[in-house]
Amino acid sequence: MPHFSMEYSSNLDGVVDFAALCRLVHQKILETGLFELGAVRVRAIRCEAYAIADLLEANSFIDMSFRVGKGRSEDDRKRTGDAIFAAVTEFLGPQFATPHFALTLEVREIDPSLSWKKNAIHPRLRAQAS
Amino acid sequence: MPHFSMEYSSNLDGVVDFAALCRLVHQKILETGLFELGAVRVRAIRCEAYAIADLLEANSFIDMSFRVGKGRSEDDRKRTGDAIFAAVTEFLGPQFATPHFALTLEVREIDPSLSWKKNAIHPRLRAQAS
Amino acid sequence: MPHFSMEYSSNLDGVVDFAALCRLVHQKILETGLFELGAVRVRAIRCEAYAIADLLEANSFIDMSFRVGKGRSEDDRKRTGDAIFAAVTEFLGPQFATPHFALTLEVREIDPSLSWKKNAIHPRLRAQAS
Repeated sequence: MPHFSMEYSSNLDGVVDFAALCRLVHQKILETGLFELGAVRVRAIRCEAYAIADLLEANSFIDMSFRVGKGRSEDDRKRTGDAIFAAVTEFLGPQFATPHFALTLEVREIDPSLSWKKNAIHPRLRAQAS
Repeated sequence: MPHFSMEYSSNLDGVVDFAALCRLVHQKILETGLFELGAVRVRAIRCEAYAIADLLEANSFIDMSFRVGKGRSEDDRKRTGDAIFAAVTEFLGPQFATPHFALTLEVREIDPSLSWKKNAIHPRLRAQAS
Repeated sequence: MPHFSMEYSSNLDGVVDFAALCRLVHQKILETGLFELGAVRVRAIRCEAYAIADLLEANSFIDMSFRVGKGRSEDDRKRTGDAIFAAVTEFLGPQFATPHFALTLEVREIDPSLSWKKNAIHPRLRAQAS
């Protein structure tokens, strides 16, 4: 945690650079100052079959989900969502210039009493930071 | 939103037509009259590794998740789920004729205070509709 | 239900045996005695694009989500999560031996009033069990 996962229609393959988009979201998450470097995990999941809006072949979507641990205020979660959504919207300018693209983001909290984590990256990065 | 996502075991590839199944769900969502055309996004996610029930190679599953914005009554959500589940069950008659298939659907609401959306499809379709 | 789904960075392909990992989780779920054999569905979803921690190529993750039907106590859900997480952590010893891997698990309940299921595996297995 934090976990940022986006599902996308496969007709965006080769059109959107998802590795670059993941890095952009990663950077925006860190810029909030609310999350530790070693914990950030952003990824994209390809959906090969889909049916979008009026079913035109050109229609495409990205649907983003951001799961964060408890402990941030609702205002912090809202500011984080605002910052990420604005940056992603700008990155996807070419898609929004067409009448065929839709973007969404949902933020939700992880219940700490029913979650587990083990992170071998933290010790390495915390040692570098100290 | 609405977002309809289904995960499936990859042994259904070439057996179930997932593009057709996505279009069927898309149609059922629209037939409820509760959702706007430009907002409907249905997709399928392939799972290549899995372990199902008694681990027979023939075992397969589809697990469907439907996320809808707030503003519909629980009764509306229930009727929508009923209609989709009935249609998908009928579509998957050949799978249910074997003792190796399981289907599930879960509906949940999206918290509007922590969600964002930008849709370039809406203006085009709303212009056509008016 | 129960549904166990894990997302993983694609640089673990050929490094972690996900079919074996799915079978291990499947076995741990059944060992709790809380779930019926015919209902268990474990799977893995590959994420080809990602951005993890300090962006080293060696960084990788597995993020596991376990959705269970209502009717178990919080203590039962907790014990189940403990057992699965311990077994998976042991299985992934080689990954945890590097400073580049992070593992998470979240358990959540499925709202029975907004879920549907149809299972053709149950009758076959229940007939064998009786």
